[in-house]
Amino acid sequence: MVVDVHHLEKKFKFKNFRQALDLTNQIGERAEAEGHHPDIYLAWGKVELKIWTHKIDGLSESDFIFAAKVDQLPTPDTK
Amino acid sequence: MVVDVHHLEKKFKFKNFRQALDLTNQIGERAEAEGHHPDIYLAWGKVELKIWTHKIDGLSESDFIFAAKVDQLPTPDTK
Repeated sequence: MVVDVHHLEKKFKFKNFRQALDLTNQIGERAEAEGHHPDIYLAWGKVELKIWTHKIDGLSESDFIFAAKVDQLPTPDTK
Repeated sequence: MVVDVHHLEKKFKFKNFRQALDLTNQIGERAEAEGHHPDIYLAWGKVELKIWTHKIDGLSESDFIFAAKVDQLPTPDTK
C-alpha cells in the first residue's frame, strides 16, 4: 500500500497566548535537540505543526519519530 | 483615500532555527505586554508575522503601533 501524504499535521488549542508560546518553545527546543524542525504556526490560543522532511519534500521515518516525541511533551493544557 | 488592507505582514530571515525561535519569543513577550497578538509562522530560518485586529477583522491603529514596536526589536541578525 502506498499512502501519498506530504506531511504530518498536529493541532493544539489553548485558552491563552502564553500556553501556546510555551508549547512552541518546548517543540522548538526538541527540534533543536533532534536536528529536525517542523513548521510552527503560533497564534492566540493555538499551535499548528507541519512535520516533513524538506530534503525529500515528503515523509521519512524521522518525521514519525519527531511527531511521537511531540506527543510525549507535557502540553500546557494537560499538565 | 481608502486602502482596503486586511492585515500587515512582516517577514524575517535567519541562518538557523534558533534565531527564528528567539525572535518568536521576543515578539511573543511583546504581544503579551501589549495585549495584542499577531499570528506567527515559525520555520527553520524564518519568521512571518500577520498583524490585524480580530475584533474588526481588519486593521486598527493598534496594529500599526504593534508593527512599529516589532520594528524596534533587536532582531538576532542585526545585533
